[in-house]
Amino acid sequence: VYSTHGAGGRRIGIRYGDRVLDAASLLPDTVFRAGSLVPFLRRGLPAWRDARARVQRMLTEERERGAVEESAVALDRVRMHRPFEVGDYVDFYASEHHARNAGRILRPGRPPLASNWKHMPVGYHGRASTVTASGTDVVRPRGQRHGDDGPVFGPTRKLDFEAEVAFVVGTASTPGEAVGVHHLHEHVFGVCLLNDWSARDVQAWESRPLGPFLGKSFATSVSPWIVALDALSDAWTDPPPRTHHLLPYLDGGRGLDIALEVRLNGQVVSRPPFASMYWTPAQMLAHLTVNGAPVRAGDLFASGTVSGPERSQWGSLLELSEDGTRPLRLDDGSVRTYLEDADEVTISASAPGPGGEVICLGDVSGRIVPARG
Amino acid sequence: VYSTHGAGGRRIGIRYGDRVLDAASLLPDTVFRAGSLVPFLRRGLPAWRDARARVQRMLTEERERGAVEESAVALDRVRMHRPFEVGDYVDFYASEHHARNAGRILRPGRPPLASNWKHMPVGYHGRASTVTASGTDVVRPRGQRHGDDGPVFGPTRKLDFEAEVAFVVGTASTPGEAVGVHHLHEHVFGVCLLNDWSARDVQAWESRPLGPFLGKSFATSVSPWIVALDALSDAWTDPPPRTHHLLPYLDGGRGLDIALEVRLNGQVVSRPPFASMYWTPAQMLAHLTVNGAPVRAGDLFASGTVSGPERSQWGSLLELSEDGTRPLRLDDGSVRTYLEDADEVTISASAPGPGGEVICLGDVSGRIVPARG
Repeated sequence: VYSTHGAGGRRIGIRYGDRVLDAASLLPDTVFRAGSLVPFLRRGLPAWRDARARVQRMLTEERERGAVEESAVALDRVRMHRPFEVGDYVDFYASEHHARNAGRILRPGRPPLASNWKHMPVGYHGRASTVTASGTDVVRPRGQRHGDDGPVFGPTRKLDFEAEVAFVVGTASTPGEAVGVHHLHEHVFGVCLLNDWSARDVQAWESRPLGPFLGKSFATSVSPWIVALDALSDAWTDPPPRTHHLLPYLDGGRGLDIALEVRLNGQVVSRPPFASMYWTPAQMLAHLTVNGAPVRAGDLFASGTVSGPERSQWGSLLELSEDGTRPLRLDDGSVRTYLEDADEVTISASAPGPGGEVICLGDVSGRIVPARG
Repeated sequence: VYSTHGAGGRRIGIRYGDRVLDAASLLPDTVFRAGSLVPFLRRGLPAWRDARARVQRMLTEERERGAVEESAVALDRVRMHRPFEVGDYVDFYASEHHARNAGRILRPGRPPLASNWKHMPVGYHGRASTVTASGTDVVRPRGQRHGDDGPVFGPTRKLDFEAEVAFVVGTASTPGEAVGVHHLHEHVFGVCLLNDWSARDVQAWESRPLGPFLGKSFATSVSPWIVALDALSDAWTDPPPRTHHLLPYLDGGRGLDIALEVRLNGQVVSRPPFASMYWTPAQMLAHLTVNGAPVRAGDLFASGTVSGPERSQWGSLLELSEDGTRPLRLDDGSVRTYLEDADEVTISASAPGPGGEVICLGDVSGRIVPARG
């Protein structure tokens, strides 16, 4: 969803190289005149496939060239927005490498993985209203952290990023009925990138016993372009070998070979491989709905931090700096434990496409601004 | 929000004894023609006060009697609906008695209260889309629970209720700005009753380290009538004495003297006193927003289980049956550890009103139906 300066409201766009094609101009369906993707998301898989096929045909047929050119706007002339109102937002914890790193760092002396971890994709609900578009500044949040003489209040000293992949639900499921592990495509429209900004000191102090709350709820950034799941058909891959027997409702689903890249002030600090995730998106959706809770258009579920086995593949500063005990040295000579004001974090990604092409998933970016008040 | 058989859509109603007054018929404002309270919630405190004063005037003036009579429908001829789309739903853990009971029962051998508990109202995000109107059946959820030879899947064996009071946000707060502890009235329109149905076996197995998820997300029932905060002006009371020094952003806010009653198949099993809550609604809202996360119209935050100091005042079966080890004997001769299929739970409440009157907060009710599949 984009807008142009001085040209009215929000419109649905289709990314085509360094241009945006206006969907309502190309496709004869009022659903594309909404300023939000939600009405189109509700249409379901046949409509998603039909729209994609129509646009692909127009891009290859000579006689459509005029219509395509007329609908195009240069990318640098548009402003991108969060493309849909988020319904319920769930964040998982699906990377074994991340879970082991976080356990080792945050709960030393205990087994890094809780006993449930290999039996279910552990997850929790996050705040939907603070899911914001890429490019929105992130105000350093204030909150309580643990201090030797009681809690201390102030701007977080441990502001972190989390590189994640997220899934956008289109077709609602039936209340009371679980979505089977082989039915991901019928409900999920597409994929975006997500940065689950985290205040680690706030999170550590508040999380017992009900989990993360204000340490996460201040901001979650999403990439503006949603890549249809259908466009990623060459990216499916087997997940890592399962080490434990799975309950039947979780037995299935494949991984996605999405290569992430995290840049801090322009410098690549991590290359997390989504293919290394233990739990697959199909397993996340099956688990999320197994108690009968339905999903609906606009629901968003994210993978949790993507971290690979190597240090250069870890998707958060909690891991990269070992909770601040091992600072990163950046190319400009500065060091980082956690994020400083004015730091900018950009997560981008790519995946294999048809015929050896590379599909770009765009990026999600945000800059830290100082705490208020 | 109500509907009548054969008479079209949803309408906004005002409860008047055993009748419903149609708001759009009485008040000359298009906002009351919506099938949802949200547009009215967005109007803010002056509009809420004005509407309340107008209706009160009409109810006392003889020449308005005709209009009032024309707008009235008998309560037993209407169907009540969830009165608004829920934005973000947050559940707190604000009763010291409940937190101590739950800690003692679920984490024996450790201090019942975590070290953060007296310094902040601990809370977490719940699922907004499964907040449903009173009277909706609750399907027994299925899920994973811990077993001696690995996890077991099936219908929960520990289905519980939680008697809670919830607060409905009307006026949005500004992103990035905390709501001060003395500004509850500017944002919260009113109060309803809430049953946070819980599958204790699912919850116990899944909650480490990110907190409750599927053990709670299958259903949350709310009472259909929202009592305006202004109507409860005689119910404010001092909360229990504070045992710890509070950070300034949490220092303030009063409690509400709301007396709850929980009936299981018609028999009163608990009388939880909301006046005994350690954390006040103003403190919950101040905490929720202190990191800059805004609230918006339709957001809902709940108190967590209300439990008083006496066993007869505990607001969940987890507590009343000591996690099933001390069954309740009911008047019909049956015993209960947790809820059985066909059980019906009703939570009702009252509060002091002006001149010694009692204000009824209505009730929230739900019946358990067997697991599907």
